Amino acid sequence: MTTPRLPGYEVAPWELRWRWLDLDALRRTESTFALSNGHIGFRGSFEEGEPRGLPGTYLNGFYERRPLPYAEAGYGYPEDGQTVVNVTDGKIIRLLVEDEPVDMRYGSAPHHERVLDFRSGTLRRNTEWVSPTGRRVRITSERLVSFTQRAIAAIHYEVEPLDGQAQLVVQSELLANEPIDGDVDDPRVAAVLKGALVSDFAVGEGSRAVLGHHTRRSGLRMAAAMDHEVDAPAEVSTENWTEGDLARLTLAAEVPQGRKLALTKYVAYGWSSQRSPQALRAQVEAALAGARQSGWQGLLDEQRAYLDDFWEAADVEVDGDAELQQAVRFALFHVLQAGARGETRAIPAKGLTGPGYDGHAFWDTESFVLPLLTYTLPDAARNALQWRHSTLDKARTRAAQLGQSGAAFPWRSIDGDECSGYWPAGTAAFHINADVADATARYLAATGDGDFEASAGLELLVETARLWTSLGHHDAHGRFRIDGVTGPDEYTAVVDNNVYTNLMAQRNLHEAASHCELHPELASALGVDEEETARWRDAADRVVVPYDEALDVHPQSEGFTKHAHWDFANTPPEGYPLLLHYPYFDLYRKQVVKQADLVLAMWLRGDAFTPEEKARNVAYYEALTVRDSSLSSSVQAVLTAEVGHLELAYDYFAEAALADLHDIYQNVRQGLHIAALAGAWIAAVAGFGGMRDHGGELSFAPRLPPELSRISFRLCFAGSRICVTIHRDEATYALSHGEPVRTSHHGRPILLTQGQPITMPVPRPPENPLPRQPAGRAPTRRRLQPTPGG
Amino acid sequence: MTTPRLPGYEVAPWELRWRWLDLDALRRTESTFALSNGHIGFRGSFEEGEPRGLPGTYLNGFYERRPLPYAEAGYGYPEDGQTVVNVTDGKIIRLLVEDEPVDMRYGSAPHHERVLDFRSGTLRRNTEWVSPTGRRVRITSERLVSFTQRAIAAIHYEVEPLDGQAQLVVQSELLANEPIDGDVDDPRVAAVLKGALVSDFAVGEGSRAVLGHHTRRSGLRMAAAMDHEVDAPAEVSTENWTEGDLARLTLAAEVPQGRKLALTKYVAYGWSSQRSPQALRAQVEAALAGARQSGWQGLLDEQRAYLDDFWEAADVEVDGDAELQQAVRFALFHVLQAGARGETRAIPAKGLTGPGYDGHAFWDTESFVLPLLTYTLPDAARNALQWRHSTLDKARTRAAQLGQSGAAFPWRSIDGDECSGYWPAGTAAFHINADVADATARYLAATGDGDFEASAGLELLVETARLWTSLGHHDAHGRFRIDGVTGPDEYTAVVDNNVYTNLMAQRNLHEAASHCELHPELASALGVDEEETARWRDAADRVVVPYDEALDVHPQSEGFTKHAHWDFANTPPEGYPLLLHYPYFDLYRKQVVKQADLVLAMWLRGDAFTPEEKARNVAYYEALTVRDSSLSSSVQAVLTAEVGHLELAYDYFAEAALADLHDIYQNVRQGLHIAALAGAWIAAVAGFGGMRDHGGELSFAPRLPPELSRISFRLCFAGSRICVTIHRDEATYALSHGEPVRTSHHGRPILLTQGQPITMPVPRPPENPLPRQPAGRAPTRRRLQPTPGG
Repeated sequence: MTTPRLPGYEVAPWELRWRWLDLDALRRTESTFALSNGHIGFRGSFEEGEPRGLPGTYLNGFYERRPLPYAEAGYGYPEDGQTVVNVTDGKIIRLLVEDEPVDMRYGSAPHHERVLDFRSGTLRRNTEWVSPTGRRVRITSERLVSFTQRAIAAIHYEVEPLDGQAQLVVQSELLANEPIDGDVDDPRVAAVLKGALVSDFAVGEGSRAVLGHHTRRSGLRMAAAMDHEVDAPAEVSTENWTEGDLARLTLAAEVPQGRKLALTKYVAYGWSSQRSPQALRAQVEAALAGARQSGWQGLLDEQRAYLDDFWEAADVEVDGDAELQQAVRFALFHVLQAGARGETRAIPAKGLTGPGYDGHAFWDTESFVLPLLTYTLPDAARNALQWRHSTLDKARTRAAQLGQSGAAFPWRSIDGDECSGYWPAGTAAFHINADVADATARYLAATGDGDFEASAGLELLVETARLWTSLGHHDAHGRFRIDGVTGPDEYTAVVDNNVYTNLMAQRNLHEAASHCELHPELASALGVDEEETARWRDAADRVVVPYDEALDVHPQSEGFTKHAHWDFANTPPEGYPLLLHYPYFDLYRKQVVKQADLVLAMWLRGDAFTPEEKARNVAYYEALTVRDSSLSSSVQAVLTAEVGHLELAYDYFAEAALADLHDIYQNVRQGLHIAALAGAWIAAVAGFGGMRDHGGELSFAPRLPPELSRISFRLCFAGSRICVTIHRDEATYALSHGEPVRTSHHGRPILLTQGQPITMPVPRPPENPLPRQPAGRAPTRRRLQPTPGG
Repeated sequence: MTTPRLPGYEVAPWELRWRWLDLDALRRTESTFALSNGHIGFRGSFEEGEPRGLPGTYLNGFYERRPLPYAEAGYGYPEDGQTVVNVTDGKIIRLLVEDEPVDMRYGSAPHHERVLDFRSGTLRRNTEWVSPTGRRVRITSERLVSFTQRAIAAIHYEVEPLDGQAQLVVQSELLANEPIDGDVDDPRVAAVLKGALVSDFAVGEGSRAVLGHHTRRSGLRMAAAMDHEVDAPAEVSTENWTEGDLARLTLAAEVPQGRKLALTKYVAYGWSSQRSPQALRAQVEAALAGARQSGWQGLLDEQRAYLDDFWEAADVEVDGDAELQQAVRFALFHVLQAGARGETRAIPAKGLTGPGYDGHAFWDTESFVLPLLTYTLPDAARNALQWRHSTLDKARTRAAQLGQSGAAFPWRSIDGDECSGYWPAGTAAFHINADVADATARYLAATGDGDFEASAGLELLVETARLWTSLGHHDAHGRFRIDGVTGPDEYTAVVDNNVYTNLMAQRNLHEAASHCELHPELASALGVDEEETARWRDAADRVVVPYDEALDVHPQSEGFTKHAHWDFANTPPEGYPLLLHYPYFDLYRKQVVKQADLVLAMWLRGDAFTPEEKARNVAYYEALTVRDSSLSSSVQAVLTAEVGHLELAYDYFAEAALADLHDIYQNVRQGLHIAALAGAWIAAVAGFGGMRDHGGELSFAPRLPPELSRISFRLCFAGSRICVTIHRDEATYALSHGEPVRTSHHGRPILLTQGQPITMPVPRPPENPLPRQPAGRAPTRRRLQPTPGG
């Protein structure tokens, strides 16, 4: 896998800086420089609106419906899709310098840099621009999407003439229905919706304006409001103009050289499927009033305090690879942004950083993002599970439509309705239900959150368990089979007894039964009796886990190892990703793996495999896995680390962490790969930290790759805070806060108490022959790359 | 399966008569009364144009393109579909009686009947109509689509005033772009295209007119022309009017009571993807000249002579069930109409009787229609195979696109390009290629047609054999597996080692190798060497045929018998056809069979099963097969007869023969089920006649069901003609023409020579326990139904 180094990002531990003007990279950097609090998302586009890559402003859960067409329709195919809408853009602050619009495609920029600061939670910009006629100005801006005031974004913007007094005209806008270009040569790229917003109202007066809109087909309503504070060294004339899709505050002033025209813009957003336009208007105006009361500095202070808390709980330190240190914090920062304040909304696969995957959420959330959030920001994990729970009625309806009991969560969705238009890789991927249950059980074990268990958690476990007993059946020998479903690997579909699915269903059934046993009254209220829990346990105990005795490996699913091998030798580099160059029929029937599947089972259900099985399976599946999905390298890092291939694990770690900074999948313009970024944490904590949580028991088995001298990470567990520091030969466990925690180090039990760090020796890794990857698909050898600036 | 008896058809041995006016049944009878010669198709609509069900005039191979939409696109999905076009309607002869348009929705019809005559090859109509104001006329018409003059249809039309002199105005039309209603609540129903035809020219003079059109997207050109002969007892004023989509000859006359205004209308059609409008105009005008030279009586005489020959070679006599006798001749007549003069065009699943399935041809042709045509009208069989051969370049291109060698014929198509928009039930059904090869080998064995073998047959065998060696692979034990394909049963998809597919591929590989061995020079010209034929033979000999040792049956495909059984007990009658009420995912993963699959293998590859295996497999699959496809009952008739369930076979025979007359599938309005009709012949000849042709050896094993006293059928074989007559206790074989034929009777070799009929005793059938069908899905017990008029 090639990881082209893009120019531009400078290596620094706590920020992402881009010092040059590279118009071609605009779309990519709009994604990496995106700001979000999980409710509002601002892509990192320039204040002046143009040049631009793919402008984007998103509100979590706000979507438009579109019909899903089928060449040949079928029963149970979803009729409607959902697509995230580019809502009213509140980022825009246009500037004219002596009648010349500032546009970086013209004139020149002797200095230009943008900095995403992981500790301040802001995007700063500093541009010195020379107009085509030679006038020089400095533009500085800083903006944030507030973690503490969920409806608020704000921009502080300053312009300074550098070569004598200049007339400056600033236009601060709210702009709806921006025309955007499509990008449709890839089936994975989102459909583009044009003119999705219909104006409900547009009002403005003084420094304030509000626009109200609704979507044409989904009928969702939104409002966006702005207010401003101006600080100018001279008289400023102002004009407030509003019309349907546009609100504009225009400021004009003669500004002397060396003085600055400063503008603080507060933007508030709200949306609802129920509330009236009037109520929404009141809501955003109230939010604006709150933000103005805090003021710009107040918002900055709150933002930094919020992030100080986050880093205290979540930081991962990596010594020995400065770029990777930066990438890991970049990853953590963006996962935080995706999940912080979603609150009963989904965490989409792209967060709120771009329109990719139509803005849908997948199993990525539960299986990749929630492990991170559960141990670093458990409230955000609970909120994400709360969203799933809020869609239970839709999931029950879907299950019934499919002839099943319990709940069938959608493969991809914004509001909980299935939006997958290709059932073999959508509806059939029932494992998402076990993934939801696993995330629920993990959250409950890691937090002991009894309120959530009672209000939502138990019901999630029960309804997903019910699905499995209806999906599976007992064969003539009493074995419990789950036939005709699709596992995580999207290059294999509609198979019998996928090992991952069966083992995760097994856990789901056991967890549901155990939690019902602990809470018989709650269980009874959900209609669960002892007969039902007995059926769950029986099915779980008898679940089929196929094994290939001849090859001594687990087939990913029944019959998998009998299939022909993919002809890797004759697949050219440009043949990847394979799904764009080969038909599904041929991918499905051959031994080629898009993403960790059996290997994922060995992480999440590592308790179901022996160390020897893990080593053999890793060797077998490494040779088949092409990583055409961003959900693979982190999992491969975990398992290759466990079986002793620490250098290889390090390469996979880097691939996950750098997925978007190196644009490995060549589509970061459509938004970040939030699950791959969460995978950087997974690779560090579960990979090199060896952290596992089977059955709610926390355990560690740390080992460093030779390239790194230290990894240190923090975890929240049962209200306590743990810090694990791994050196080459020893690892130290410290409890910084809370009750004592029982855990283990390479199988040896330890009890962590405050003020008593425990240091343990790191044993030598197991020795297994280094596996091979398909021709051309080995991860980039990290040590061969000089680390720029590092 | 319910077989509602529709009112209307009268039982008669050589005709189909409908004596009442039933406007609700119009769409159905337009299909059953359709006329066609395989090139032109006229649905059985009234001359006066209205009332109408679904008017239709079709030219074989003439289609419009339409984009195939996908909710989620994939590599190799066809972008364009093809839909048969309702072309310029030449059937229309409107009538005004004293200013009152004849329309059977108004006034009354004291007498009305229509007769499809299987020996004259015409559709006759006799209507006495009383206008709302009380004027009475008799309208008689007879029409034909000529078997002998391929471009020609003709109508002889007479009107007689019955209550005094009347002014009659007759408008004979060519009408393009008739608006037609859609019928889209079933995914199997064709897309309706509106305004598909663009006018190229419209000319008319005297009694003649020609309209030229082309299709908007596919760019095919067509012309339709008409000419007339008028016979009137009084002066007739005429007017010829033509405009873009309409040509109209208007005749007006005062006709005395008891006299007739008679009109003969000749209609000629032509189309081309290459020829100019001028050339097409000349072509249809030339055809008209030929038809006029023959005259109406000449056309009638030719038609009858053609049919006399056909019935001489193809008739099947059934004593003891008059309705079934009629149904079998109806079936033979329509299969003849579908295949007679297609000439290098496909035989669509609906023939040219309606727009169902978009007018596409499927494997139905090779596996159901061609067995009949090969032994009754071998030239038509050759033409259909010639069509396949003419699409070889497209099939090679498709195979290459799919990463395969050889040829991959389309699952559904008009011109040879794949039009299937759902790959698991389309592209993956690679068995169609073995079906083409099987039909080719059968035709070659039955005719010894060396010219066809050299020009097309061998290449068809070779290119399909090449597909199999690239589709399959050898496993570690040297067994040849064909993974990830779909067999005939559309309720199971994308499976490993489907028995039918593997056995048919085996035959394909052997036939290709044998024919290449016989014709080394021809083989060499196709690039075949001994290494390649050795590889084919090796693959064929080592092909995997899964067997379930525990159940002692063949699983339809690997793992099939491990799947859960469909819950038939809880499937209500209105839940059928299942595909409209249950999701594919659930159908695919359970033991439920839409149509004969393993059972079909036991017919076409009966040489690969022991009698005991057949009996056990029949019992097993009878219990799983719901017959939601019209391709099933005939095959079930064949195998249930073979294993001794003769009454059950009789029920399946009736279900196949009456599929359209009883509208069993509730969609005959969209066109006839040509393969089900061919299945009536299969049930009689292969079922009760026990005819098999494995390896080109003809054999018989006749047995009658108790309800019938005699079945007699005729076959063409190697230029000879055989008649087989089956009585309860004995069967007689006679050679009426040609060289002696070696065959066998229940395994005993016999040699048939002219003038020396051989009579042999019929042994008792094997005794096997009567199988059960899924609840509610047993075929209608035929003996419980009183035979109307019989």
